[in-house]
Amino acid sequence: MNPYEMSRKELSKDLARLQRAIKDKNIPVLVIFEGWENAGKGRMIQELIRDMDPRTYKVQVFDTPTDEERRKPFLWRFWNRFPKRGDFALFDRSYYQTFMETQQLGRGLKQDNLKDIFDLERSLSEDGMLILKFFLVVGREEQIERHNEIAFNPATAFRVTQRDLDQIGHYAAFEVLFQQMLESTSSEFAPWHVVETTDEKQAAEEILRIVHTSLTKALEAVPEEAPAREEIHVPDLLSEVNLRLTIDKDEYDEKLDPLQEEAKDLAYILYTKKIPTILVFEGWDAAGKGGAIKRLTREMDPRGYEVVPIAAPTPVEHQYHYLWRFFAHLPKTGHMTIFDRSWYGRLMVERVEGFAKPEEWERAYEEINEFEEHLNNWGAIVLKFFVHIDSDTQLQRFEDRQEDEYKQYKITDEDWRNRDKWPEYEEAINEMLWRTDTSRAPWIIVEGNQKEYSRIKVLETFVNAVKHRLKEEEYDK
Amino acid sequence: MNPYEMSRKELSKDLARLQRAIKDKNIPVLVIFEGWENAGKGRMIQELIRDMDPRTYKVQVFDTPTDEERRKPFLWRFWNRFPKRGDFALFDRSYYQTFMETQQLGRGLKQDNLKDIFDLERSLSEDGMLILKFFLVVGREEQIERHNEIAFNPATAFRVTQRDLDQIGHYAAFEVLFQQMLESTSSEFAPWHVVETTDEKQAAEEILRIVHTSLTKALEAVPEEAPAREEIHVPDLLSEVNLRLTIDKDEYDEKLDPLQEEAKDLAYILYTKKIPTILVFEGWDAAGKGGAIKRLTREMDPRGYEVVPIAAPTPVEHQYHYLWRFFAHLPKTGHMTIFDRSWYGRLMVERVEGFAKPEEWERAYEEINEFEEHLNNWGAIVLKFFVHIDSDTQLQRFEDRQEDEYKQYKITDEDWRNRDKWPEYEEAINEMLWRTDTSRAPWIIVEGNQKEYSRIKVLETFVNAVKHRLKEEEYDK
Repeated sequence: MNPYEMSRKELSKDLARLQRAIKDKNIPVLVIFEGWENAGKGRMIQELIRDMDPRTYKVQVFDTPTDEERRKPFLWRFWNRFPKRGDFALFDRSYYQTFMETQQLGRGLKQDNLKDIFDLERSLSEDGMLILKFFLVVGREEQIERHNEIAFNPATAFRVTQRDLDQIGHYAAFEVLFQQMLESTSSEFAPWHVVETTDEKQAAEEILRIVHTSLTKALEAVPEEAPAREEIHVPDLLSEVNLRLTIDKDEYDEKLDPLQEEAKDLAYILYTKKIPTILVFEGWDAAGKGGAIKRLTREMDPRGYEVVPIAAPTPVEHQYHYLWRFFAHLPKTGHMTIFDRSWYGRLMVERVEGFAKPEEWERAYEEINEFEEHLNNWGAIVLKFFVHIDSDTQLQRFEDRQEDEYKQYKITDEDWRNRDKWPEYEEAINEMLWRTDTSRAPWIIVEGNQKEYSRIKVLETFVNAVKHRLKEEEYDK
Repeated sequence: MNPYEMSRKELSKDLARLQRAIKDKNIPVLVIFEGWENAGKGRMIQELIRDMDPRTYKVQVFDTPTDEERRKPFLWRFWNRFPKRGDFALFDRSYYQTFMETQQLGRGLKQDNLKDIFDLERSLSEDGMLILKFFLVVGREEQIERHNEIAFNPATAFRVTQRDLDQIGHYAAFEVLFQQMLESTSSEFAPWHVVETTDEKQAAEEILRIVHTSLTKALEAVPEEAPAREEIHVPDLLSEVNLRLTIDKDEYDEKLDPLQEEAKDLAYILYTKKIPTILVFEGWDAAGKGGAIKRLTREMDPRGYEVVPIAAPTPVEHQYHYLWRFFAHLPKTGHMTIFDRSWYGRLMVERVEGFAKPEEWERAYEEINEFEEHLNNWGAIVLKFFVHIDSDTQLQRFEDRQEDEYKQYKITDEDWRNRDKWPEYEEAINEMLWRTDTSRAPWIIVEGNQKEYSRIKVLETFVNAVKHRLKEEEYDK
């Protein structure tokens, strides 16, 4: 049926049918409502959900961030509430509001966070999300009238905010700012729909119609053929690693304690300075990641850091963008999260084993760089360790583990299977190290054939990086 | 090996072995650390985790509650971080700290929340959780010494709190209070272990030994035979429901709008008064729960309430106490959560289909009553609607649904299967209505054969209950 020939009631009813089709097709749908104060966001959401099945939508209200949310990256609280595949999330305000609150009237649009938002929407859209953005507009006189209605009714007076008053007082300046924001953030994959809400019934009908049309289009869309992968030349970084590097046992014993003490003290300083830290540990099976992490954290206050071991995603996690589950684990400011394996699984095991499609892991290089940039913009120290060993060393360690009753559990059939794919993993790792090594989130390749050497290197790298950052902070003052 | 003959190092290493056995046996383990300020909680946790596998433990720090946590029931933030089956949670402070903060020195122990805590630990323990509680003690002089050490080191001075100073100033009064607390909250299933930490090494060893012994005991424990169920006489409440009650269409049309408007206004008042509301909807398949909820919420601000449809628990949810997933959905103060099906699944579908063992659903009556009592203590309005229809009406509706292309999706093979067990469900529902109807969280049986009647009844019950509560609040002033 043509949505332009449908009544509001028919549209609403048919929306429930489309909602089920969306569920069947596993498409996540994000509907954002932004706009002028008193433009009727609440009412429009109410009309939209009228006949929707509450099992697959959620209204998410973004008010002032909570204490905890303030201590996380800008986009964290939104990531937490994105819809899973097949579900709808209706956002009452969004990252656009947060963005607008950093603006100053009459100064033109400040560009901070604009790239974060653009990257985010592109990445979600490439992952299959349908994004609809409504900006509700109301004329100045109507706004004042609605304001008065709310302000002079004792049951609703509490809803008046400073924002209402600001907008009424500086209508024209806000208009300019909103216009600039809409122009800068409308994109092919996430366009803005500006809806005039003076006539609420008509506005609701228009929104229903746009949602209806967009859902129908999304359901009919045929996934595009992925473009053939361009041949790229990747340097063989692993082959350049000097795996013969070792350290004397005496030197090891001498260095370990003071380094651990220093790491502990630095962790406290990061805590007091509210600098968040994210450490990533990747490496071959039996490369010694766990041991290196234990040595690094040995003296640290366990209340300030968390080790997050990453395994294969659960069925629930599969229902989201693959970065979603990592957002949930990000530290608060001043805290440290150590990822034992990480989002780089996308570029290693998921690529090699075919758990991700080629177009999925191909676009992950960019997504990951953007993600880490976002962490960096937030102020985090991001360090990524790749613990490298050669194939013989791995074999030796596998065999040792099988003989030690305390370590047997560590070795599984899967480890042996992975081992058979050594060359494929080498190729993937080289490309990963090459394409995701950035100054903001550098890779540190750790020579791991001798465990003592690698443990000291991890500790020293951490200590130096933190000291470097603290020195920078001082200069910035 | 006898833990009393093991060195600290051996104990620590062997703990990792026990940890894997606990994982295999799916036992959740909660270790709580409380005690005097500067008694070394951080250090003791550090020693405990030294050789533990970070994949199956988590250190959970409970500091001052966040804004959001303050707006939830007292126990909410702890429920959120309990360990899943097979995992360890190490709590650095806990609900005992929260409890102690409500106390006043020299006044004797205030009993508020004591029952909540006792019920909680009993319920977790019955669900299979091993609960270990350590109370760390340090003498007054040692405490002052440690305080000075922290306070006079610039890297750690930030760790000094008002609590430290209070305890140093009023050591004897705190001692009395702590003693009373320990005596009131030690139980067979969750005993306190008081550990003197002046010698930190020795204290760490003692804790390791207690943990080692307790884990070993838990692993050897043979589940007790469930006692035979006592014969109880349950009145046939459903048979007393007058399903012939109807309402004129005209009367329905006349009443609906004003009731919906009133419900909306009352929801705003609850919002401003920060009263949380929890509504539960249960009933036969096709009884009209969804329609009743839609009519109830039609005019409400969608930002103030949430409809939470409850389906069968996911594999992850199965890893926790069955009430866990409901805690996650509780509203903030001032907000409303409407459960479309609920924790009562335990006493209906899980009982009838055998998804819960008889001893599990048998103890659920008490657990649910305690849970709702906890909600009530927090200040919530709790209303539970059971929408009742007779078997013929259900059949009629099933057949109607199958003929309507917009409603076909609503009817599944499972609905027909459930229908075959009508008498078993009747028996379970009668017992549920009888044993969980409390003045703090009453059941409202809604006559559902005529949908119009049931919708109006739900609206009227809601409106009256809220008005009644608001009147009470006024008297309380």
